[in-house]
Amino acid sequence: MAKAEVSLAHLFRVFTKPEGTDSKLAQIEQHLSDNVSDFLSQHVVTQAIPLEEIEKTFSDHRVPEHPEFVSAHADALLNKLVKHSVNTYSPTFIGHMTSALPYFHLPLAKLLVGLNQNLVKIETSKAFTPLERQVLGMMHQLVYQRDGDFYDAYLHSANHSLGAFCSGGTIANMTALWVARNTMLKADGVFKGVAREGLASALRHYGYGNLGILSSKRGHYSLSKAVDLLGIGREQMLTIDCPTQRLSPERALKLAKEYEANGNKLLAIVGIAGTTETGHIDPLDELADVAQEVGCHFHVDAAWGGATLFSEKHRSLLNGIERADSLTLDAHKQMYVPMGAGMVLFKDPNSSNAVRHHAQYILREGSKDLGATTLEGSRNGMAMMVYASLHIFGREGYELLIDMSIEKAKAFAKMIDDHPQFELITSPTLSLLTYRLRPAFLANHPLLKHADVNALLDQLTVAVQKQQREAGKSFVSRTRLHTSTYHNDPITVFRVVLANPLTTEEDLQDILNEQLDIAQNLDIWKALLVQDKASA
Amino acid sequence: MAKAEVSLAHLFRVFTKPEGTDSKLAQIEQHLSDNVSDFLSQHVVTQAIPLEEIEKTFSDHRVPEHPEFVSAHADALLNKLVKHSVNTYSPTFIGHMTSALPYFHLPLAKLLVGLNQNLVKIETSKAFTPLERQVLGMMHQLVYQRDGDFYDAYLHSANHSLGAFCSGGTIANMTALWVARNTMLKADGVFKGVAREGLASALRHYGYGNLGILSSKRGHYSLSKAVDLLGIGREQMLTIDCPTQRLSPERALKLAKEYEANGNKLLAIVGIAGTTETGHIDPLDELADVAQEVGCHFHVDAAWGGATLFSEKHRSLLNGIERADSLTLDAHKQMYVPMGAGMVLFKDPNSSNAVRHHAQYILREGSKDLGATTLEGSRNGMAMMVYASLHIFGREGYELLIDMSIEKAKAFAKMIDDHPQFELITSPTLSLLTYRLRPAFLANHPLLKHADVNALLDQLTVAVQKQQREAGKSFVSRTRLHTSTYHNDPITVFRVVLANPLTTEEDLQDILNEQLDIAQNLDIWKALLVQDKASA
Repeated sequence: MAKAEVSLAHLFRVFTKPEGTDSKLAQIEQHLSDNVSDFLSQHVVTQAIPLEEIEKTFSDHRVPEHPEFVSAHADALLNKLVKHSVNTYSPTFIGHMTSALPYFHLPLAKLLVGLNQNLVKIETSKAFTPLERQVLGMMHQLVYQRDGDFYDAYLHSANHSLGAFCSGGTIANMTALWVARNTMLKADGVFKGVAREGLASALRHYGYGNLGILSSKRGHYSLSKAVDLLGIGREQMLTIDCPTQRLSPERALKLAKEYEANGNKLLAIVGIAGTTETGHIDPLDELADVAQEVGCHFHVDAAWGGATLFSEKHRSLLNGIERADSLTLDAHKQMYVPMGAGMVLFKDPNSSNAVRHHAQYILREGSKDLGATTLEGSRNGMAMMVYASLHIFGREGYELLIDMSIEKAKAFAKMIDDHPQFELITSPTLSLLTYRLRPAFLANHPLLKHADVNALLDQLTVAVQKQQREAGKSFVSRTRLHTSTYHNDPITVFRVVLANPLTTEEDLQDILNEQLDIAQNLDIWKALLVQDKASA
Repeated sequence: MAKAEVSLAHLFRVFTKPEGTDSKLAQIEQHLSDNVSDFLSQHVVTQAIPLEEIEKTFSDHRVPEHPEFVSAHADALLNKLVKHSVNTYSPTFIGHMTSALPYFHLPLAKLLVGLNQNLVKIETSKAFTPLERQVLGMMHQLVYQRDGDFYDAYLHSANHSLGAFCSGGTIANMTALWVARNTMLKADGVFKGVAREGLASALRHYGYGNLGILSSKRGHYSLSKAVDLLGIGREQMLTIDCPTQRLSPERALKLAKEYEANGNKLLAIVGIAGTTETGHIDPLDELADVAQEVGCHFHVDAAWGGATLFSEKHRSLLNGIERADSLTLDAHKQMYVPMGAGMVLFKDPNSSNAVRHHAQYILREGSKDLGATTLEGSRNGMAMMVYASLHIFGREGYELLIDMSIEKAKAFAKMIDDHPQFELITSPTLSLLTYRLRPAFLANHPLLKHADVNALLDQLTVAVQKQQREAGKSFVSRTRLHTSTYHNDPITVFRVVLANPLTTEEDLQDILNEQLDIAQNLDIWKALLVQDKASA
């Protein structure tokens, strides 16, 4: 490895002057600019490399002693890192919520780093602070549809905030529940509030045994992380079975009442607008009624589904979302912004004051420093990416993308439903669906309800998913679901997310064909066929 | 504003094909590549624009309805956003911890977004997961200096972790205290642990009145945010005055004992390796002794000072850091990585299991998904930037940068000390110092100890800092400090952070001259001179 000279001159060069346009890093950049898909196809290998092999190239625990030339290092990055990354741009990578990005984010990423603002305070962000507030205002209006006077009063108010940017949905959910907790257990007479006195003291003061959060079993895992973090305890995460993949308002109300009858207090109901596993949307309006009746906070986790509001055709799926006290959105999902663009929104611009804090050197009272009400401290200017996307796509552009994804998911669902060897498990509400391989003879066969047959089918799904992933041509994820079809017993299913606008129906057909090919060569498949003969 | 056509064809173009090399965005990119400092000098305006003026251009609360051409939007970004951003590359922007970056981060930012990996799980990150673990291992070794066998066993172990990447020091501090809380209040007999049963139940089980965190008053504001978030309560944030800017181990031990004598339990002592305001380093080794004696967690917030470990000459300033149970580092500070590269490290690779969590579709047991033990969920691949920096600078390169910064701070301190009209308030341990304007006649004058004179000096500092910031040529921040010189009464001071390698001593001289010029035209200065005559 070529070692660079350790000298002030070298250091200054690294800070001030790029290498020539023919340097390795410049070549990488040019290729990314010309055609990012082609760059990835060329450099990311598709064959299966065991993780342990890759780990070997990242195993030295010592900080390198000597400097290295940038070009030599760029070569190492290509051969060690890029080569073994995941090609999230691939139209056949449909297993997770990360997909291709519009190309303009590449130059914008460079601008973002070139500016290197810190959004925690005005002094290190200046125009980025009003820009971030504007983006929050736009998203707030998309959800809550308040009038111009409302936004004139609150969009740039130093004493209010319509929400907060954060790294992702997890921090957004945590922030929302933190605000909910501090609002419910606020100062009261001699009691100085949970933020100052702590949770144990707050529960004593208010006479609550425990504080609970209620959601369906399809709630994101960040919710139970949040109840742990907030000191509430994971056992107070009340989850309700949902064989239909949607939370039943009746059952929610019943459980809430039972919980409170035992001396506890329900802190929040969390409705999900686009579950991570199947894309289902809880009955938000009815859940808002339940929250109102119980007298608790209503949070909606719309990390995935929030962008559906851009579509005139589909936004009614989220009816009731405008009644959410708080809301989680991830622009790095269906808004096609790079990773790291989460947002929490609050219906009431006063809400986030429940977690407001100050310091001597920044976040002084009366300042407009965003950091005074965010869970995170220093943050980059990712809001710029959302701002640019909102302008370059416009509502109409996002509408087209959303509508197209949902149509594609419906077409894929039909393809699966029509296929004799596959079984659709959950139909798409948004652009997610789940399904599994199921030998044709089992369709409508009583055997299909047998636990041991389903155990074999589970093994089949796991094996096929793994082999397909390792083959590297395409990627579908898997999960375990309880469904009404199978007496609410858990079954293992393939899970797809059809967000990439470049995915074609032909790609989807190829994915099914590949899965069937893999399956038919597995012993599990053969074992299932033996059942066919036995039952004949 | 030119509106783009709403069509699938347009959308596909935005995903697949960049505009030509002569497009506005391409021009911006080229200028950034050629010379980022020049780009910023040319586009960021330096004159004072009231924030309210900037807010007006970011006030529309409606999502734009129609798409916009990328070039038209790029123009808008330049004129509305870049123009009113902060030039963090400027050698005279020495008020905060954000400074110029080495140029290679610009093309790497593009690569990062081009790859758009999600580090929460292997399936969307692959090689980025081992890379991140390696970087954590390197930083762990830099601090804890364990041997090869240790890293062979733990660096890539699915059941252990040496730390976690996160957006910044705030999340790192929160993660450390979360782990500390869950470890101290772990399952015990029938008690299932604070993570499951919650904090109130845990305190009852263990018979603790309250749980406390102890640090000096110079502790970062994220600590009180963390005690609020974790349900401990801000009143249990025990802070000790530190007129010498360093936490006294004797006073820490005394306070810890008093606290515990009242039926409480001290959860953690937080030592600071580089305070945000003055860059001082607490006596870490002695504080480790206190933590050991009290039987509590010892956390070190080395967000700023951690990088000092790269310097052979200065690393002994942090003696005792290797005894920290957990540690916060920010690579976006003295490691010159773009915003968003925080890390928490754990001495014991089992520590983070106290917050481990699983889900059906990811983070399955036995997986190496990083998300199983991180506070955040989805995260981008910022570890690549740290990895590249560690290789391109090497330890020796960082050493040069650190040594240079400290020397520059010492030179500036001398410059201030020698100047008749300035008073050095805190000398640099690392590259931070504080000072104020103080008319020459007041040097060694009894008047200087008078409260009303100090109140005038405070006003002077505030006014000068504001005018200098608004003039836009240079930026120095301010804070309020208690110092032994002034009977531990708070005084307002200028605060500088000398991290930018491009800052020269001439720049520093200019900054002092500008401050004096501003001051001498202020009525406050004149009011002070009246005191001179009165006392004469």
